[in-house]
Amino acid sequence: MTQIGKDQKLLEGRAKVDGSLRFGADLDRPGLLHARLVTSPYAHASLRGIDCDTALEIDGVVAVVTADDLPEVPPSSRAMLMLARDRVMFAGQPVALVLADSEAAAQDGAEAVFADLDPLPAAVDLESAMAADAPAVWPEGLPGASAEAAAHGASGGGGGPSDAPSSPNEAPPMEFSRGDLEAGFAEADVVVERVFNTAPVHQSYIEPHVALVDPDPMGPGVTIYSSTQATYYIRDAVSALLGLEASQVRVVGTPVGGGFGAKFLLYEPLLALIAKAHNRPVRLYMTRLEEMLAATPAPATRVSVKVGAKADGTLTAIDAELIMDCGCFPSSMVVLAAILLGSPYQAPNQRVRGLEVLTFKPSIGAYRAPCAPQAAFGLESVLDEIADTLGVDPVELRLANASKPGDPMATGQPWPSMGMREVIEAAQSHPIWQNRAEAKARGRGVGLAVGGWPGGTEPAAAACSLQPDGTVQVHISSADISGTNTGLSQVAAEAFGVDSDKVRIITGDTTTGPFAGSSGGSKIMYTVGPAVIQAAEEARQQVFEQAAQSLEAAIEDLEIQDGKVQVKGSPDQGIPLGKIAQRTMRFGSRQAPIFGHGRHAQKGSSPGFCAQIAEVEVDQETGRVIVHKLAVIQDVGKAINPLMVKGQMMGGAVQGLGWALLEEMRYDGTGQLLTATFLDYALPHIEDSPVTFDMQIVEVPSPSGPFGARGVGEPPVVPTAAAVASAIKDAIGVRLDELPMTPPKVLSALSQPG
Amino acid sequence: MTQIGKDQKLLEGRAKVDGSLRFGADLDRPGLLHARLVTSPYAHASLRGIDCDTALEIDGVVAVVTADDLPEVPPSSRAMLMLARDRVMFAGQPVALVLADSEAAAQDGAEAVFADLDPLPAAVDLESAMAADAPAVWPEGLPGASAEAAAHGASGGGGGPSDAPSSPNEAPPMEFSRGDLEAGFAEADVVVERVFNTAPVHQSYIEPHVALVDPDPMGPGVTIYSSTQATYYIRDAVSALLGLEASQVRVVGTPVGGGFGAKFLLYEPLLALIAKAHNRPVRLYMTRLEEMLAATPAPATRVSVKVGAKADGTLTAIDAELIMDCGCFPSSMVVLAAILLGSPYQAPNQRVRGLEVLTFKPSIGAYRAPCAPQAAFGLESVLDEIADTLGVDPVELRLANASKPGDPMATGQPWPSMGMREVIEAAQSHPIWQNRAEAKARGRGVGLAVGGWPGGTEPAAAACSLQPDGTVQVHISSADISGTNTGLSQVAAEAFGVDSDKVRIITGDTTTGPFAGSSGGSKIMYTVGPAVIQAAEEARQQVFEQAAQSLEAAIEDLEIQDGKVQVKGSPDQGIPLGKIAQRTMRFGSRQAPIFGHGRHAQKGSSPGFCAQIAEVEVDQETGRVIVHKLAVIQDVGKAINPLMVKGQMMGGAVQGLGWALLEEMRYDGTGQLLTATFLDYALPHIEDSPVTFDMQIVEVPSPSGPFGARGVGEPPVVPTAAAVASAIKDAIGVRLDELPMTPPKVLSALSQPG
Repeated sequence: MTQIGKDQKLLEGRAKVDGSLRFGADLDRPGLLHARLVTSPYAHASLRGIDCDTALEIDGVVAVVTADDLPEVPPSSRAMLMLARDRVMFAGQPVALVLADSEAAAQDGAEAVFADLDPLPAAVDLESAMAADAPAVWPEGLPGASAEAAAHGASGGGGGPSDAPSSPNEAPPMEFSRGDLEAGFAEADVVVERVFNTAPVHQSYIEPHVALVDPDPMGPGVTIYSSTQATYYIRDAVSALLGLEASQVRVVGTPVGGGFGAKFLLYEPLLALIAKAHNRPVRLYMTRLEEMLAATPAPATRVSVKVGAKADGTLTAIDAELIMDCGCFPSSMVVLAAILLGSPYQAPNQRVRGLEVLTFKPSIGAYRAPCAPQAAFGLESVLDEIADTLGVDPVELRLANASKPGDPMATGQPWPSMGMREVIEAAQSHPIWQNRAEAKARGRGVGLAVGGWPGGTEPAAAACSLQPDGTVQVHISSADISGTNTGLSQVAAEAFGVDSDKVRIITGDTTTGPFAGSSGGSKIMYTVGPAVIQAAEEARQQVFEQAAQSLEAAIEDLEIQDGKVQVKGSPDQGIPLGKIAQRTMRFGSRQAPIFGHGRHAQKGSSPGFCAQIAEVEVDQETGRVIVHKLAVIQDVGKAINPLMVKGQMMGGAVQGLGWALLEEMRYDGTGQLLTATFLDYALPHIEDSPVTFDMQIVEVPSPSGPFGARGVGEPPVVPTAAAVASAIKDAIGVRLDELPMTPPKVLSALSQPG
Repeated sequence: MTQIGKDQKLLEGRAKVDGSLRFGADLDRPGLLHARLVTSPYAHASLRGIDCDTALEIDGVVAVVTADDLPEVPPSSRAMLMLARDRVMFAGQPVALVLADSEAAAQDGAEAVFADLDPLPAAVDLESAMAADAPAVWPEGLPGASAEAAAHGASGGGGGPSDAPSSPNEAPPMEFSRGDLEAGFAEADVVVERVFNTAPVHQSYIEPHVALVDPDPMGPGVTIYSSTQATYYIRDAVSALLGLEASQVRVVGTPVGGGFGAKFLLYEPLLALIAKAHNRPVRLYMTRLEEMLAATPAPATRVSVKVGAKADGTLTAIDAELIMDCGCFPSSMVVLAAILLGSPYQAPNQRVRGLEVLTFKPSIGAYRAPCAPQAAFGLESVLDEIADTLGVDPVELRLANASKPGDPMATGQPWPSMGMREVIEAAQSHPIWQNRAEAKARGRGVGLAVGGWPGGTEPAAAACSLQPDGTVQVHISSADISGTNTGLSQVAAEAFGVDSDKVRIITGDTTTGPFAGSSGGSKIMYTVGPAVIQAAEEARQQVFEQAAQSLEAAIEDLEIQDGKVQVKGSPDQGIPLGKIAQRTMRFGSRQAPIFGHGRHAQKGSSPGFCAQIAEVEVDQETGRVIVHKLAVIQDVGKAINPLMVKGQMMGGAVQGLGWALLEEMRYDGTGQLLTATFLDYALPHIEDSPVTFDMQIVEVPSPSGPFGARGVGEPPVVPTAAAVASAIKDAIGVRLDELPMTPPKVLSALSQPG
């Protein structure tokens, strides 16, 4: 293989650096209407009316849209909530939208709209929302879990509901169990039970949401430009809402300046309705403030973990629960929490549960391995405590209990091929771990944790053509996040037999493109890659068939070398690929165009595991935690593009450090967000990165992944917080049970009896 | 077959009628530069300099572009002539281009540019240009025939050059011969020799040329929107000129409001250079005046035909020549003239010749069956004269000598399957022909003529997917002229097994689309159709494979009925097609997307023939010819969409009436166009159409056409002028030998001795 495993810079990297890449907010259209949201200042209130008169007097303001201007659509998902009709459920919820000929007029208009809101009592955290007498987010019953939330999830069936909710804000829990829990704990020599809390965090993509909807002048359709990970999801939602057929809604993905799971669909359906009603193009880009108030952050959770083990470290029982603060809409993601708590380690007796609780806050969205960092923080912390209590090496404890392929997951389904054990073994021999005594001697602490991601699947198709300049053009439809197009150019190059710089990846829209699923769940390389290989191999075969005639040779004697088709070892009579294409693209030609296609659906997922080792120093006076060293050891199956794979591992781990030490969306008791700007919301900066930051690739090939590749994006964010917590424990002797582990919490822990 | 042969309205017909269709001139872009041409008033002049100062002072004028701003590119084709460098070769030739922020400023600027031109002697018609001492259009030698002109042509090899040119403006002639010409004429009982002249005419599409070039903000590429029949030709020309790779030039076809062969590429390369230089979008739409002065009309010709026949009507020899007034550039179309003169009828001895002569006029372009109306006018007129002289029925004379499949064409290649004989026989029994004596008794005349078109080929590809709403989406790249997308929707529907209203044809651009050749040469249905059938059949097979699993049935037991896949005859358990698609487009699905592909190259062409019968009345006082009845009898192989096929036949014949009676671009002796507006240039109006206008479809299936279809667009324009000329002869006893046959020419003929 010449193209696979080769470091390749991001195809669009230069344009991103020099500023020439055009993002959605750079788009314009003649007659564009600029949109700005008018949002609720209250977390819960009755909406008595909206006074638009002052706003409409402002020069340039064209209209103020309220729910009265929209069809009454069941609020089946957050995207269908659109504008508040008679009640708001979170501070920041849009109640109106101002349309104007300029952004400035729209902003002035939005400030001049008066929404007459009558505040009502709000339950904004888990405790208050779970009270039996809590104000209900949905007094008439919860809406169904949203389809787009489900789509973020990993594969695996859901468990059945267990028992009746105790509060109007609890959704039916998801639970998986096996064995006899009581007996399991009874035979344990040690039982550790802890409760952990994690803060809500924001995905904090640099580019806010942006969408532009252009009504089709030739029919009832619309073209939607959106910075989205899921063009087809938008197409299907909008066509259903507008009563159009799928092909009348054309969704064009614009470059995604960070998404991390949060950019599926949000305001596109609302904008499409408005663009159709006004028959003008409409654009909305969100401000950072709106992103913080009115997007879809990651949930706060409470994770309770109780684990029993024998003296030799063998687990006997796991009883774990993750309660997720979903904001104002249910999500189907909680099933993932249960799976992630009950699958990595084998205990014969276990019960794992996920529970969603609704609060008067924005509904949650996916964020890189949704639920997994929280679950791993609880589970890995408790495993370390058990190792501590038993005096067992924490790595040995993990190796003794780690799942192997074929072992049951929480659902009872067997684990497919995966490299959990291999990453733990690699971590065990890593210098940071091997030298932990030395670090300890210098006052530091070292912690290790493991986490994984089951990996998603969704069908995909691809097309491959040969162009007259000799380039190989590959047509796909997946949004290019995290370097997927760059990696797919290598995959196509390897399959076709050219250098990757001769491959052009064309990202289609929903009308022209071969179908691909959403860019979420660490699945683009895993699912689109095989379709690309099929398409490129078919095109290569067509090239051979054509060349075999000209060269009077058998197909099996041909090869592609240096951009030419030739009889093996005879470059002199080779035919340049461009010439092959030219022969198929001219008047009177008797050769059909080179046009291969691929279509594929994975039959199962390929989980990816990551182990991380953190070496920290805790400032005893300020409580500040400094992560000096971090090793990220990940099974990626096969690193198609090691440069980008390491970039993903690093990026995920830095976000993991944000979870661990910095990030928190803080709300006051009335549901007001106190951290609504990047001055207040602490994202990791470059100086928060470890000085020693080591990415180690492990390759346990996936039997079904392209060239053995597994999903890469999600696993590296999973174990970071747990590894840092164990390192802090190693350093100061106290385990923290709340994320982020900010200096005040560390100081508080330091003041506890060791 | 349920979809083929069904009358189907134009898919975009309603949008064309209600004005909602967006043409190229409706496109806008932020920061758009409006372009206007500054053209030469002289047919031949030295360009001493251009004074732009006054123009640049006009508010809104951004720049005046001259040849000095452009790279020195060899003028290998008209599109590469761009702006005159030191000499102009036709009145109307662009010498500069003004860029402005508004159309009005661009117009004002263009009027304020002063080009210092020093007039030179010009030869503007065949006679003066063929003089040995004529001023040379290209003093340093003729440029090569243009590739885009070649592309209009039909298949068939060219003959070799025959003898040295006698004037600097003559291109090497194309000649095909066989047998012994002298002997052939010697054995003839009658020899008729005539010379015919035809006027230059304009294609007179309602929508003028328009192109908008948008530089790519993310790289060196450009996107070109153009009302073109040939997106890939523009891509290849522009990428070569700009030194870009093919995929960096994206050509998006806009709806073509008439093209008829003239809309391949013209000013797109110039606009692309300018857009890149100014890094702003540039749009040029031509005015009607510019269209008349500076586009690519159809040539004036002189056709000399000498035919010998035995007393029984058997032809013994044909000696024919078509001299084409090419304007300032050679064209390869003249080879068609020779083929068209020497192929329809069989004579054992023949010499057919095409000769191109350059003049100081705009270079010519293709116009619906290029050269064929002129060749048929000459050849059919002489055949009628022979019939007259011999007292043989003109239909019997034609039937006796008409070529049959397998007979040699002028090139020596055998005629493929074609229906010349069948259309003549159908004409013979047509009421207008049968009742000609009665018409004659009423003072009218009836004439009959035949003409054909060999039909072009060019490879094509297509893709077919199934959408979640149950629609079948077909992705192709051919420009949709003359209802091709409508017909292709029927072809896809038949192949897939749905109603055509469930098919959506998506016309791709050069980047996203599967390749297709230019929409010229009557070949889209013939060449793209088979690729669409392949793609639809492959997709249908994929649907069956998926459904076979669900229905637990064998694939061969399945059928598609009423939008459902079902076990034959069991509609109750049928699966809706939409559901099949939905199963392939969701998270975690195990079914690959339905995505079929097709790629095809025809191995030969499928000629189409048309016979026409005209019944005319000649006003003896004014010389006006009224065509009361016209029958158009055409072999279309198989009428996929009879409604549109008849529309094509009618449209072609009306244009044929324009050739016959009305249209002429008149130039004065200095090369000034005297008929540069639609007030002066006489297009046929609705009242020029016959009251009895009968389209009769003949179906001699093409062995290689989709469902037997042949090209339809070109044949109906071919025999009209000849049929009308013979009808006039029948009415007044004199044969006219010059097109258009205007009242003054008729009056002049009437004054001749009958």
